[in-house]
Amino acid sequence: MRPSGRELSEMRTVSIETGVTKHAEGSCMIRIGDTHVLCTATIEDRVPPFIKGSGLGWVTAEYGMLPRSTTSRMRREAQAGKQGGRTVEIQRLIGRSLRAGVDRVALGERQITIDCDVIQADGGTRCAAITGGWVVLKLAVQKLMKAGEVTSDPLTDPVAAVSCGIYAGQPVLDLDYPEDSEAGVDGNFIMTGSKRLIEVQMSAEGSTYSRDQMNQLLDLAEKGVDELVAAQLAATGA
Amino acid sequence: MRPSGRELSEMRTVSIETGVTKHAEGSCMIRIGDTHVLCTATIEDRVPPFIKGSGLGWVTAEYGMLPRSTTSRMRREAQAGKQGGRTVEIQRLIGRSLRAGVDRVALGERQITIDCDVIQADGGTRCAAITGGWVVLKLAVQKLMKAGEVTSDPLTDPVAAVSCGIYAGQPVLDLDYPEDSEAGVDGNFIMTGSKRLIEVQMSAEGSTYSRDQMNQLLDLAEKGVDELVAAQLAATGA
Amino acid sequence: MRPSGRELSEMRTVSIETGVTKHAEGSCMIRIGDTHVLCTATIEDRVPPFIKGSGLGWVTAEYGMLPRSTTSRMRREAQAGKQGGRTVEIQRLIGRSLRAGVDRVALGERQITIDCDVIQADGGTRCAAITGGWVVLKLAVQKLMKAGEVTSDPLTDPVAAVSCGIYAGQPVLDLDYPEDSEAGVDGNFIMTGSKRLIEVQMSAEGSTYSRDQMNQLLDLAEKGVDELVAAQLAATGA
Amino acid sequence: MRPSGRELSEMRTVSIETGVTKHAEGSCMIRIGDTHVLCTATIEDRVPPFIKGSGLGWVTAEYGMLPRSTTSRMRREAQAGKQGGRTVEIQRLIGRSLRAGVDRVALGERQITIDCDVIQADGGTRCAAITGGWVVLKLAVQKLMKAGEVTSDPLTDPVAAVSCGIYAGQPVLDLDYPEDSEAGVDGNFIMTGSKRLIEVQMSAEGSTYSRDQMNQLLDLAEKGVDELVAAQLAATGA
Amino acid sequence: MRPSGRELSEMRTVSIETGVTKHAEGSCMIRIGDTHVLCTATIEDRVPPFIKGSGLGWVTAEYGMLPRSTTSRMRREAQAGKQGGRTVEIQRLIGRSLRAGVDRVALGERQITIDCDVIQADGGTRCAAITGGWVVLKLAVQKLMKAGEVTSDPLTDPVAAVSCGIYAGQPVLDLDYPEDSEAGVDGNFIMTGSKRLIEVQMSAEGSTYSRDQMNQLLDLAEKGVDELVAAQLAATGA
Amino acid sequence: MRPSGRELSEMRTVSIETGVTKHAEGSCMIRIGDTHVLCTATIEDRVPPFIKGSGLGWVTAEYGMLPRSTTSRMRREAQAGKQGGRTVEIQRLIGRSLRAGVDRVALGERQITIDCDVIQADGGTRCAAITGGWVVLKLAVQKLMKAGEVTSDPLTDPVAAVSCGIYAGQPVLDLDYPEDSEAGVDGNFIMTGSKRLIEVQMSAEGSTYSRDQMNQLLDLAEKGVDELVAAQLAATGA
Repeated sequence: MRPSGRELSEMRTVSIETGVTKHAEGSCMIRIGDTHVLCTATIEDRVPPFIKGSGLGWVTAEYGMLPRSTTSRMRREAQAGKQGGRTVEIQRLIGRSLRAGVDRVALGERQITIDCDVIQADGGTRCAAITGGWVVLKLAVQKLMKAGEVTSDPLTDPVAAVSCGIYAGQPVLDLDYPEDSEAGVDGNFIMTGSKRLIEVQMSAEGSTYSRDQMNQLLDLAEKGVDELVAAQLAATGA
Repeated sequence: MRPSGRELSEMRTVSIETGVTKHAEGSCMIRIGDTHVLCTATIEDRVPPFIKGSGLGWVTAEYGMLPRSTTSRMRREAQAGKQGGRTVEIQRLIGRSLRAGVDRVALGERQITIDCDVIQADGGTRCAAITGGWVVLKLAVQKLMKAGEVTSDPLTDPVAAVSCGIYAGQPVLDLDYPEDSEAGVDGNFIMTGSKRLIEVQMSAEGSTYSRDQMNQLLDLAEKGVDELVAAQLAATGA
Repeated sequence: MRPSGRELSEMRTVSIETGVTKHAEGSCMIRIGDTHVLCTATIEDRVPPFIKGSGLGWVTAEYGMLPRSTTSRMRREAQAGKQGGRTVEIQRLIGRSLRAGVDRVALGERQITIDCDVIQADGGTRCAAITGGWVVLKLAVQKLMKAGEVTSDPLTDPVAAVSCGIYAGQPVLDLDYPEDSEAGVDGNFIMTGSKRLIEVQMSAEGSTYSRDQMNQLLDLAEKGVDELVAAQLAATGA
Repeated sequence: MRPSGRELSEMRTVSIETGVTKHAEGSCMIRIGDTHVLCTATIEDRVPPFIKGSGLGWVTAEYGMLPRSTTSRMRREAQAGKQGGRTVEIQRLIGRSLRAGVDRVALGERQITIDCDVIQADGGTRCAAITGGWVVLKLAVQKLMKAGEVTSDPLTDPVAAVSCGIYAGQPVLDLDYPEDSEAGVDGNFIMTGSKRLIEVQMSAEGSTYSRDQMNQLLDLAEKGVDELVAAQLAATGA
Repeated sequence: MRPSGRELSEMRTVSIETGVTKHAEGSCMIRIGDTHVLCTATIEDRVPPFIKGSGLGWVTAEYGMLPRSTTSRMRREAQAGKQGGRTVEIQRLIGRSLRAGVDRVALGERQITIDCDVIQADGGTRCAAITGGWVVLKLAVQKLMKAGEVTSDPLTDPVAAVSCGIYAGQPVLDLDYPEDSEAGVDGNFIMTGSKRLIEVQMSAEGSTYSRDQMNQLLDLAEKGVDELVAAQLAATGA
Repeated sequence: MRPSGRELSEMRTVSIETGVTKHAEGSCMIRIGDTHVLCTATIEDRVPPFIKGSGLGWVTAEYGMLPRSTTSRMRREAQAGKQGGRTVEIQRLIGRSLRAGVDRVALGERQITIDCDVIQADGGTRCAAITGGWVVLKLAVQKLMKAGEVTSDPLTDPVAAVSCGIYAGQPVLDLDYPEDSEAGVDGNFIMTGSKRLIEVQMSAEGSTYSRDQMNQLLDLAEKGVDELVAAQLAATGA
């Protein structure tokens, strides 16, 4: 019934390949089916002005899509002269979600910037970015711990994200692009490995939904997050 | 226990004054406690290119804050040369939420733009903007119906929004600014008058939450929306 | 003969309501007929680089129009990505005019920013902004004097502004929008309460005028300023 | 008593050299003392959208300063990414002033763009730009008349501009930079050859002035305009 | 003697992997040592206005670097609000170089956009982009020919690029980043497979060079281009 | 055979007039036929951050065209809100070329900014800008040496530039606009007075060229540079 032939509660194939670029303090290519996102982590000693001297760390994120990551070519944002509303919204979400899983005291007064660049898009890019973003954040932190610059692990519980939606009247896990463009209701669910919620964004375009439906999607999301966290732990050796 | 002395499930005073500017097709000043937002509706015959010729209507929104609507002066966005990320995120939410409650076939091929400008801010400006935005949308539609340009009411169920959060460990309704700046978890809940969900955005900054806590906030939100819808109906004579 | 039925030398009704927002150090809504401008004053300890260390104070202004303050909706300048030429011209005029009436030594090394936002426009917004701007400047200074931070009053003579023009061949006081859009010659006259001139801007679009006509408009302007100053003094208790 | 040793009512030397660039439909270098402005006129068949089909012509102007036209180097506006407030204000003034002296019916539905670029600045650049701008406008119109595209002269009365101010307590004609930077009151006076007024902009920075002083400056300005118009007529053979 | 231990006339390892993204009409990852550039081709039916109706085709290019493709993180250009001077210069060069090798009549009135995004940088990114850009251009054209939309091959001679420079006093082929940052003279040589020149850009930073040295670098470049063209032909099966 | 009737190896008339503006530390108007560029040099004590404290000097350049320097009016870049790709490319070339001829140790830790503004364009503006740029750089340095601020001449060998191309199948020296717009191959050759090369940029638009042709153009360029250097030495009394 789903265009891909998947079961309602079936994720796409997940793979996370680390060490894909040599300069970054952490890097991976995360592939959720045909959605491919390159994530890198950069460690810097400076922090934003509003926490200078606080001893707390900061994690921030930026997001972009290569112009031809999509079916038809998108205008390059650097050319357009600004990041679009969707881009800004997504990168704020990535940063906020990852920060929720960080012990900023343990991280110490430094900033880690997570760059998420979509190489190929097929739905769910922001969820893939968060999931892959946590992996490269972890890799960067492991480097800091190995060097003795951080002594207590600030990342004890993974952060992962998955989208679910109501497609053709049925709750489905991990929407791909053909489903996403048809679904009247879809949500992004960001959770920790222990299934604590970090962010729920569930919206209807031109329709509405009930609390029951919301709970069905949350059940599916928990299942998806289990699979994603397993891949994260495998990739980081954690 | 709340800074304002309110009960955990107590809304601030709600008032909606209509007809506050003479040029707009609909206007109101919505006041939720000390949060004051001026909303106007503008009807135009043109629609965005992607629905031209479809017969469907469109509702869009823009949001702004006057520089001194806040405790300390904010930089004017027109001066800065662009709308910030938070502004873009909010105005997309307002437009999406209001569209979910509109029968776009009944509206017919025209666009209604909702402008929401914060005159004074004390927490919950986006929720006030959605709630007031629906009022001026309704007023504009009433004008179209009186003129016979629209014959079947495209707005049968009001759309309202309220924020709830976990403050000092307790679930509270309708966060004001002192609460909002301290709450580790807060959510915006957009619903129809019949309590169907349109959008849930619930996020944690530097912490996490459980599904139980989420359900407690949803219960509070339903209570708040009842009060807001009553004020909307009174203001529009609907 | 005037569209509004007013006498040639008759002002519209003037009202100034103070204390309209709780955060600003001074605030008012000035209404000149159907032109309504919200003015706020913000006191800051920093001054622009070019007077740092001089002991002198600074007054600056910004101006904006809400998108639907006008008959048809204007594009939001924050959206357009810059302030238009007219906006820039007006806010420079407001700042310059108010500074002319300030004893900058008495003010001391601090900056007061006057924000003037047009809620509803019906001609003469820049004059209303200057007149209301002086009121909130005065309120802010009164707060500084009460707190003992300023000891000698830097604002001894009010600053007010009115527009006059040649409409249908006749000199008229206080142009409203229907007159303004027809007048071949119009001027903005900024004066002190003692009728000293601060700025005269009198221009013809597609025509010219004589020195006699200029003097007739100046006579009318003096009459208008008397009424405005009375309202300013009443509003500030000065 | 004046830094330059000039009499109170003495203009600087005025020269207008035409035909200084080969591409423009009209060009001149106007020199008012050490202030040198290159003016060009460009004729185009298109007009702005708001007068399309009206049969009326349009005149518009742009203004710029070369980075090292001033004592210390100014930042290039193309580099800064926008025209500053002062630039915008000046080019709007030039366009408005020149249009006041044009019979737009006689000009016919075409646009003439006047570019005024300051090569060397020593005070009074906007007045030089208006005065030189009229010269190149006239040259362009003469070309149109010679070609038979315009049959009735739309420019019957020259437009010229001069600044006057109160320097060291005395009314002086044609302020140069050392005077301009010290003058508490200065004005720009734009008139026709027959001494009809087009625009008066007289402002005080940090002081005020009386109507008597205003009239003294107007008297001086009339004298200056006589000299400028003589130079304009000589340059255009009119 | 070279940091990498290569011979003076030794290229880095070249590999070109095609079909790396599913949406583009042509795609490849070109790797020249540690320099990795993702190239995609997009076919569109529209052409730029200046050749509309001419029957001629157009090829254009855009270039970008992922923020962490470099040793230390670069600011994202979409964030900065514009493409930097270096980016603009490079993408103009890529487009110009590829167009030189295209029979634009044979291509027909369509546009092919080549996007070159640097995934990892280690010197020579613009040359890799041109070399990989020709590969994806060829793949897109092969698709058009297979579909019968283009009948005569517009790409008969490959276009490839290599950098050479004078490093430690010696002419060397294919500079990597450590060499590039030290070389006083370096050049980019763009040629066809038959060794016709398309563009030579050879510049000295803080020094000069002789015609003899220029000829030595050209000799090296011809050798490098031979290797690159072999890889291009293998990748495209041409 | 050339549109201008010149011999294949004949330069246009070259003239360099110095001292054309009074504020700059060096200024000239360079005229290469109908191409006229105004060059100024500005000395500043500050240097870019990346060489602060190094004791080295810096030379940088900016380039602009007056809107009506060209046959049809170009849009003013300050109005467009950014410098176009061509402008950026040219000003980077000018700066790089001039720096190659400067002993930055002898110059000492100061910056000289060369502004090149095209007053009238007829092909070869970038070459004229470099040639005139060296003249004003020399004039500024002479002023520093006269004042004893620089003791050893940092400019011992002039830098000049000329364009050559293949026009109607023949190699020609110093392309004017009619030739430039037709030439399939053209190059810019920047050299010192002793004929050492600084930069060669030779590109084909829609065609290719051989090494022989390249050498023919280099021969012509050497001849042209001899004439330009003679004019530079005459203008600077060097």
